[in-house]
Amino acid sequence: MKPINVGLLGIGTVGGGTFTVLKRNAEEISRRAGRPIRITAVADKNLELARKVTGGEARLTDDAFEVVGDPEVDIVIELIGGYGVARELVLKAIENGKHVVTANKALLAVHGNEIFAAAQARGVMVAFEAAVAGGIPIIKALREGLTANRIEWLAGIINGTTNFILSEMRDKGLPFAEVLKEAQALGYAEADPTFDIEGVDAAHKATIMSAIAFGIPMQFDKAYVEGITKLDPVDIAYAEQLGYRIKLLGIARRREQGVELRVHPTLIPAKRLIANVEGAMNAVLVQGDAVGATLYYGKGAGAEPTASAVIADLVDVTRLHTSDPEHRVPHLAFQPDQVRDVPVLPIEDVVTSYYLRMRVDDKPGVLADITRILADSGISIEALLQREAAEGESQTDIIMLTHRTVERNANAAIGRIEALPVVRGQVTRLRMEALQ
Amino acid sequence: MKPINVGLLGIGTVGGGTFTVLKRNAEEISRRAGRPIRITAVADKNLELARKVTGGEARLTDDAFEVVGDPEVDIVIELIGGYGVARELVLKAIENGKHVVTANKALLAVHGNEIFAAAQARGVMVAFEAAVAGGIPIIKALREGLTANRIEWLAGIINGTTNFILSEMRDKGLPFAEVLKEAQALGYAEADPTFDIEGVDAAHKATIMSAIAFGIPMQFDKAYVEGITKLDPVDIAYAEQLGYRIKLLGIARRREQGVELRVHPTLIPAKRLIANVEGAMNAVLVQGDAVGATLYYGKGAGAEPTASAVIADLVDVTRLHTSDPEHRVPHLAFQPDQVRDVPVLPIEDVVTSYYLRMRVDDKPGVLADITRILADSGISIEALLQREAAEGESQTDIIMLTHRTVERNANAAIGRIEALPVVRGQVTRLRMEALQ
Repeated sequence: MKPINVGLLGIGTVGGGTFTVLKRNAEEISRRAGRPIRITAVADKNLELARKVTGGEARLTDDAFEVVGDPEVDIVIELIGGYGVARELVLKAIENGKHVVTANKALLAVHGNEIFAAAQARGVMVAFEAAVAGGIPIIKALREGLTANRIEWLAGIINGTTNFILSEMRDKGLPFAEVLKEAQALGYAEADPTFDIEGVDAAHKATIMSAIAFGIPMQFDKAYVEGITKLDPVDIAYAEQLGYRIKLLGIARRREQGVELRVHPTLIPAKRLIANVEGAMNAVLVQGDAVGATLYYGKGAGAEPTASAVIADLVDVTRLHTSDPEHRVPHLAFQPDQVRDVPVLPIEDVVTSYYLRMRVDDKPGVLADITRILADSGISIEALLQREAAEGESQTDIIMLTHRTVERNANAAIGRIEALPVVRGQVTRLRMEALQ
Repeated sequence: MKPINVGLLGIGTVGGGTFTVLKRNAEEISRRAGRPIRITAVADKNLELARKVTGGEARLTDDAFEVVGDPEVDIVIELIGGYGVARELVLKAIENGKHVVTANKALLAVHGNEIFAAAQARGVMVAFEAAVAGGIPIIKALREGLTANRIEWLAGIINGTTNFILSEMRDKGLPFAEVLKEAQALGYAEADPTFDIEGVDAAHKATIMSAIAFGIPMQFDKAYVEGITKLDPVDIAYAEQLGYRIKLLGIARRREQGVELRVHPTLIPAKRLIANVEGAMNAVLVQGDAVGATLYYGKGAGAEPTASAVIADLVDVTRLHTSDPEHRVPHLAFQPDQVRDVPVLPIEDVVTSYYLRMRVDDKPGVLADITRILADSGISIEALLQREAAEGESQTDIIMLTHRTVERNANAAIGRIEALPVVRGQVTRLRMEALQ
């Protein structure tokens, strides 16, 4: 059968992996897809690299717009990244009637509504399995595997860099800055790690998952984003003592008034399967009303794991590219006219539990004052850990785990606790989720 | 848009769950599917139950063949189970040009080749997400999510009853028979639990997964099937001491000479995520050459989790039922003319590691005799545990973990060990997998 022709934009790590896997598994893939899938054109600024990777088996150019305009190309793979030229290229490809496969989470989280509307109008597919959690087929699970369910919430370890750093901080008791350097040396963190360690990358992915889980538009600008840079190893250790692990989670939860969409370090019970996802691995936990909890685990980054997702999309698109659009899965899982503008709630309206650590004077009545404030705010205490003051010390740490309350209420109570003269400095506050 | 009409055969646990979830989430589901999906006809021998569950919202009959012949019905859901009348009904539905959704693993594992050939010839779909691991979308992951990969092996905890029993045996140190009674009282095991505890159910599911993972026909009759009825709690405890858990795994592995397809109690490293899947939960670990290891976890049985899979199939079929068959995913993941008759290897040709426990006389030279036999057979020892003989005892236990070898070779060595005069009774042998 006639091969389908693919134009590849960007032949870096994932692009190279895609080329390699498509070639190595050509037979296996066409046995599934029903026809060969071949990369016929590659655009990259680095022509030498492109030549090395492709070994002369594809036409090379340093002009990506030329590939997007190539009448021979059926599908464009966009692996350039970022919001700028990638957006122009994707929109141009759509305009030219080409299907698009992309791993670009930043682009979709920020410009997805525009891109999917354009694709819908032009009758082409934009596939993005590789944009979330690398090789784990989580987009397919959410869009197709769980269609029977009203999805209640999802929570994911969706950034390998930060999960590697948190695993190392816990295992070795080292501070963030030191582990970050190690992660950079090992290639687990980039030279400029801002998007990863500040939670932005996880927020891009959580935004995409929230849209397809709940049938809402992308609302990245409304997401609450908090990274791991301020995390103190002492809190990782206290959490451990209390039976919890700290993970950077991307959380999306359906509430009556709207949707919670947030990324922050989170205490989770150590006995949950997802708490045991270590190193650079990813996992997403999804709660549906019929199926209950399901978990999806695997490599969230890297050349071949991400290529696995890119190629799965290529096979899907190959299968459906000449089909009537009504036979295709809607881009955001829900039919375009059924996407509803449900608001993302501000962080003050989020309901969660809290881990609180405070430095206090070691004298009678302190605990009574603090617990009184919490009781007055209607916040129940689930667990309490008071370190015995070391000899000669006049201060000690109190650690508390609270039951669920609305963040606004927790903030007010924390403010009152910090105002107590026996409490020294600020209260350290981390959010906590039972994930049940 | 015009609703799609579904005929439901069997309104027991899963049928009732399917009816309930379709009704409860009707809006959410049609927002995704693009049109309403409604059950218009229900067949069950128990008309009173059918009346109670449906509340008069569907036509009822005790004649399933009547539903299969109903010209108004677009899709038939087969939830009768077993190989007998279910096979006739499914083939008749296909003959009548109806698409079929089924949860019947026994039927597909045994008669799948015939059924899929008939569906292919008639241009209809037979969907079976619910046949393996309940609500976990593992069929979709294997058929569509991992199409880039040459799948190397998969290993699954795919029977909740036996996983519940094994978890309880470990936690409470109780023997199999006692825990089975408890499981029956709690509803985790059926009155006749044979198919579950003897591994047959897991073998049905492993057979189905092997076909779609490797592009081979169903070969259930070639599967090696060993249940958990002979498992001694002492081996669970020794395994624990050595850092392993015992799980009933369904394993399919690609080898150069053929495919391994086997179900048996298996030692796996306790630190693997899948080793921590407890109680009635299911999980499947899949190793692909590009993506590496991915894991899928969730509820493998029960009314609504299984209904979740049935309805996901309904949505897929609804979307594609008027499409050209070339736009559909092939039943067994690979194009029908690309399914290859790769043989399933006999158990003697399987390559794995072993846990060996033997009762020996507590005197010098015994260990030397045993290790000499293993060395002569080219079997290396990975770990060894020798219990100190209790005071007054003249015998003791030796436990060994071996490196990988072919089963025929292990059998021969075990035979020679059992022939040693210092070895009492039979050697207990369990297979072991590193899952890496």
